[in-house]
Amino acid sequence: MSRHIYRDRGQNAHPSTDATSSRPHPGWEGRRVSGTTLDDFTGRYAQRIHGMAQSEIRALFSVASRPEVVSLAGGNPYTAALPMDELSSMFHDLLHTSGPQSLMYCPGQGNPRLRELLSELMSESGIDSSPDDITITTGAQQGLDLIARVFLDPGDIVLAEGPTYVGALGVFQAAQADVRHLPMDEDGLLPDALRETLAQLDRLGRSAKFLYLVPTYQNPAGVTLSEERRDEVVAICHDHGLLIVEDDPYSQLTFDSTDPTCSPAVEPLTPASGTARPPAPLRARTDWGIIYVGTLSKIFAAGLRLGWVLAPPAVRDKLVLAAEASILCPSAFTQEAAVRFFTTMAWREQIKSFIAIYQERRDTLLNSLSAHMDQGVTWTKPGGGMFVWAQLPEGLNSKTMLPRALNERVAYVPGTGFFADGGGQAQMRLNFSFPSAEEIQEGVRRLAGVISEEMALRASFDR
Amino acid sequence: MSRHIYRDRGQNAHPSTDATSSRPHPGWEGRRVSGTTLDDFTGRYAQRIHGMAQSEIRALFSVASRPEVVSLAGGNPYTAALPMDELSSMFHDLLHTSGPQSLMYCPGQGNPRLRELLSELMSESGIDSSPDDITITTGAQQGLDLIARVFLDPGDIVLAEGPTYVGALGVFQAAQADVRHLPMDEDGLLPDALRETLAQLDRLGRSAKFLYLVPTYQNPAGVTLSEERRDEVVAICHDHGLLIVEDDPYSQLTFDSTDPTCSPAVEPLTPASGTARPPAPLRARTDWGIIYVGTLSKIFAAGLRLGWVLAPPAVRDKLVLAAEASILCPSAFTQEAAVRFFTTMAWREQIKSFIAIYQERRDTLLNSLSAHMDQGVTWTKPGGGMFVWAQLPEGLNSKTMLPRALNERVAYVPGTGFFADGGGQAQMRLNFSFPSAEEIQEGVRRLAGVISEEMALRASFDR
Repeated sequence: MSRHIYRDRGQNAHPSTDATSSRPHPGWEGRRVSGTTLDDFTGRYAQRIHGMAQSEIRALFSVASRPEVVSLAGGNPYTAALPMDELSSMFHDLLHTSGPQSLMYCPGQGNPRLRELLSELMSESGIDSSPDDITITTGAQQGLDLIARVFLDPGDIVLAEGPTYVGALGVFQAAQADVRHLPMDEDGLLPDALRETLAQLDRLGRSAKFLYLVPTYQNPAGVTLSEERRDEVVAICHDHGLLIVEDDPYSQLTFDSTDPTCSPAVEPLTPASGTARPPAPLRARTDWGIIYVGTLSKIFAAGLRLGWVLAPPAVRDKLVLAAEASILCPSAFTQEAAVRFFTTMAWREQIKSFIAIYQERRDTLLNSLSAHMDQGVTWTKPGGGMFVWAQLPEGLNSKTMLPRALNERVAYVPGTGFFADGGGQAQMRLNFSFPSAEEIQEGVRRLAGVISEEMALRASFDR
Repeated sequence: MSRHIYRDRGQNAHPSTDATSSRPHPGWEGRRVSGTTLDDFTGRYAQRIHGMAQSEIRALFSVASRPEVVSLAGGNPYTAALPMDELSSMFHDLLHTSGPQSLMYCPGQGNPRLRELLSELMSESGIDSSPDDITITTGAQQGLDLIARVFLDPGDIVLAEGPTYVGALGVFQAAQADVRHLPMDEDGLLPDALRETLAQLDRLGRSAKFLYLVPTYQNPAGVTLSEERRDEVVAICHDHGLLIVEDDPYSQLTFDSTDPTCSPAVEPLTPASGTARPPAPLRARTDWGIIYVGTLSKIFAAGLRLGWVLAPPAVRDKLVLAAEASILCPSAFTQEAAVRFFTTMAWREQIKSFIAIYQERRDTLLNSLSAHMDQGVTWTKPGGGMFVWAQLPEGLNSKTMLPRALNERVAYVPGTGFFADGGGQAQMRLNFSFPSAEEIQEGVRRLAGVISEEMALRASFDR
């Protein structure tokens, strides 16, 4: 056999000219003892690692997961509500009818049948899509990451709500983007703020790469962009040729009752009061310039890591290439499970069961907050989703208060985790999807105690 | 409720000053009809998309998967050999004993129990590791991608075997790295070529970020870096302070017989002739400067998308951050399945059963090549793994020959897919793990016919 078969003949072939191999240089062992450097590889990393930092949420989880702590900090769906017997039968059938294919590689864009089913699912929200324009991802998080890879160079501007989803911040920061927050109120993003920011950028000769939005039951703020503002935001973005990345994990988790703590004088926060449908997604209003990100983590199971991106064909092509470079393909196995969830299981009933649980827990959280919190603490009243955003009284800092709260065995996420610019110091995110009603009541009781003490401390300090 | 609770008071708060929302500008619909631009977003993409291109392998799969085509082009393990009944029981138990946790999010670094088990698995190859230094990934592909994210800036030099794994090329090219190939022979990478390349770079004041290697049953070349050369390569890299990324998907798939077509005069290519163990991984020789990448795709199931990276602590920290930014966490569900594969199933027997199947198919492939191929065609004789690398006679081009081969209902991967620099035109990769022995025989017969015709055509053209 030729020594050169590993390469075209004559092209860069490089036969060994010295067959006697040199012995390992005794000196190399010395590298391990050269001082006390904790990181031998300093100076070798890519520039982008400077954008990577552990999110405050992640750092918190080890403490918050101690059994004595009531955690309102998490973001887990309540997977114990899934029907394990039915899932077990489903996997049995899956393995016996499509085991070999499901345990193998699959197309990088994802299972074609699942893409059809997701297209049908989106049509229920008024989104008209072709399964060809869907890319299946390893959770919505990977969808965001692929979008960042396709669009973001270091220094690029991304607009986002303030506060915004911490996982999206992590992606944008890892891409070394410059995230600019836009303020919100109880009806979501303020369109005038968007308009003004875009005008400012125009004046500076800059432009943003896209606007990132979680319009429905926002994480962390728990608010929903109103019907009117949706049209307005789309119009503003179209006028400026600005892409929108619409992240929509929660819109299927719509509660069918309004805020239990509302007096009749207060306008219910559930959009279109009393109905169980939020305003249609932005992508249902136009197919130009919107990249829509969905997930099965909230309506089926986060542990399967399945999300998707619906994007215009030219963008989709690039997303698929980026996906293949990063993971080859999503899990054929969990995708086939999702196909069977939608085709053989009572998936609509399952979603209703999640909704019933979360709605009861939201009610408990809102009622507990009303019962226990001092005046001066306010909070949002979400019509769906998994989170409430609370505002502390003037002068309190949710981040510096956290050790005291953990000491009192209650955890939350400080608001700073949801801002790229140091904002959120007087806010916190409270989760109601995972803890039980009893835990929520006890957690809020403890939290209210901590806040009261902080306020008293603050008052005596001010005096 | 305050309108400003979404942000620290007074900090960038931006109340809406004009509640009457503007209607969508009628002009924006025009964007869809402005000419025949296929890509409305040209000019908005990140620089890195210029490095992304569909791999030749991916592009080939749609044609190669037609039922009438015998595909020697794939890289699929033979998952039909997995015991579906036992897997079904395993998933039943999993759902009933740890369903809720397995269907939820998990730590970004991966399941701690699985990391312990992988550490034990590696110890069988002589690798001493802490489970803390393992990061679980969505297939080994994501491991490579995370390494690229942590280390590669545009223009950085990566050294790799030529040919090298196409998926690694995709990652490095997406990171806009400058991949330089090093030649190999039947004992793997030529250490002198490595030495010379590093000296050349030194003279130019450049350095490489790392050396990427698949030392054992290399994909696509099917060769194994010899015992002696392993020590030599490690010593050279240590002398230069060069990191090594050791990608080791195939070393558990070691055949226990040598090349069936060898005459006694030809040295068997299975390392340490007749034994069923390849030389120990590079990582078993030193723990400085080696990042080891493993996968469960070849010993369990590719469809679960599970791989791992063993890296020094400082690097591991960055890999975990990069992993969390890109997917939050790997699938808790498939990780728990892997835990149960190693703790409740006959996994060693399963690997033996894969080996028996692949060894028989390799024998069939090598025997068929000997029986049918014209003189002038040569090929490697792998002692394990899934691939054979074939060299065509002078003047033939595997890429331009492919349409004719597909027409004759046989597929392979042209060698050019495995080079970043246009090399590999006279080579091809042949897979033996997935097609049956009968298919392999028929495929080689067809391929030999195509090559003969090409040679005849070439000869008449030369005359």
